[in-house]
Amino acid sequence: MPRYALKLEYDGAPFAGWQRQADCATVQGAVEAALARLEPDVPTIAAAGRTDAGVHATGQVAHCDMARDWTPFRLSEAVNFHLKPLPVAVVACARVDDDWHARFSAEERRYLYRVVNRRAPLTLEAGQAWHVRGKLRADPMREAARHLIGRHDFTTFRATICQAKSPVKTLDAIEITEVPLDHGVEFQFRFRARSFLHSQVRSLVGSLERVGAGGWSPADMKAALEAADRAACGPVAPPFGLSLTGVGYASDPFAEPAT
Amino acid sequence: MPRYALKLEYDGAPFAGWQRQADCATVQGAVEAALARLEPDVPTIAAAGRTDAGVHATGQVAHCDMARDWTPFRLSEAVNFHLKPLPVAVVACARVDDDWHARFSAEERRYLYRVVNRRAPLTLEAGQAWHVRGKLRADPMREAARHLIGRHDFTTFRATICQAKSPVKTLDAIEITEVPLDHGVEFQFRFRARSFLHSQVRSLVGSLERVGAGGWSPADMKAALEAADRAACGPVAPPFGLSLTGVGYASDPFAEPAT
Repeated sequence: MPRYALKLEYDGAPFAGWQRQADCATVQGAVEAALARLEPDVPTIAAAGRTDAGVHATGQVAHCDMARDWTPFRLSEAVNFHLKPLPVAVVACARVDDDWHARFSAEERRYLYRVVNRRAPLTLEAGQAWHVRGKLRADPMREAARHLIGRHDFTTFRATICQAKSPVKTLDAIEITEVPLDHGVEFQFRFRARSFLHSQVRSLVGSLERVGAGGWSPADMKAALEAADRAACGPVAPPFGLSLTGVGYASDPFAEPAT
Repeated sequence: MPRYALKLEYDGAPFAGWQRQADCATVQGAVEAALARLEPDVPTIAAAGRTDAGVHATGQVAHCDMARDWTPFRLSEAVNFHLKPLPVAVVACARVDDDWHARFSAEERRYLYRVVNRRAPLTLEAGQAWHVRGKLRADPMREAARHLIGRHDFTTFRATICQAKSPVKTLDAIEITEVPLDHGVEFQFRFRARSFLHSQVRSLVGSLERVGAGGWSPADMKAALEAADRAACGPVAPPFGLSLTGVGYASDPFAEPAT
């Protein structure tokens, strides 16, 4: 059975997350239903990041095994046709080796968290960024973020329901970019790591926001990390500000345009 | 009665346009209803651009007359409170002279039209950009746009229901910017003029798209303009790609931050 890698973009709002559930609309369920319209017996698909309810993606990667030999272009067109009108789209598709695995072959995940910092409520950005009214300062957040880089026990910053065997992870980068808007400022938090714990990015952003607002000092972030205690976490940032933007592999399966 | 200028941002999707109508949700109706919660007898408000159904704004300007002497900051906070949960927000507010008029004092309107050019359907940008699947070329569109700059009879490019006395308008600028996306390209069309005819921007973008796709040559655009015949217009671009981004006045009422 030929295996295909699919790069997926989706608006997380109408979905109870990536992972298939019996009675909820999920992204995995939507993609599998579209594939089932093409071939009767498409096996379960796997994805690099099991995004939570409400979390978006611009660069999720999944793979599927098909019975027929599809060109990547025709497969992506057919899946997109059957995904309509849901806000999920295949933006790239490639043939991969049979032992290539969207999740287990992944060497890096990249997430973007968007915060719009202004007094007025959000209109066009509603549902795609976290609205923070009180003024945030970038420099203390950047100082706090430096304490988080590297290999640490991230117990403080993972959901209690997290099923990962170990709370120890290596966070490779947190970049905080301040983008001036016509009205207010957008803070973009970009995270890179081999893998993340459940709710780790949202827990980190919620705590960084406390630092930006002045409620926490950068040293408080260090203390929260070292506490290794979920109770030491700041408020968890809402899901709709978060987006899985990319997945890194030893060799990029999408390097060649689909034909 | 003190007069206030309001800069408004809105998602046009749930509204039948700016202008108040008896049985439809409109942006004007929403803002007037919010103002009526603050004072019993707020007169009708006026706006610089009467945006059509589905058209967005990031820089619409309106004015209102209040009985009480509000600070601009408190007025904008109070209006925003009562606008919730509608996707309309006051992003700036300023006290202006009694003879200042949001519509009649305006010397320039600026519009942005967004086109996302790629094969895959839109997800996160759905409703905020026009999705064009066939590849567009920027250079022919720029060449065609040059024919439109200046003072012309724009009969070809105005809706048959347009109520302007004259079809002659001066178009000051059309800038076409090509923004690379992770998947595909976004074309941003920026228009500047003292004023526009009904559906003029959408009619121009729909015709420019024909040029970008190769169906029209740049000379066909010139011929369509010179025909001064609505039947010579290309397909009208959909409203949700369009946004009123700003209004120019001899002196910017919002130059000082609201206090």
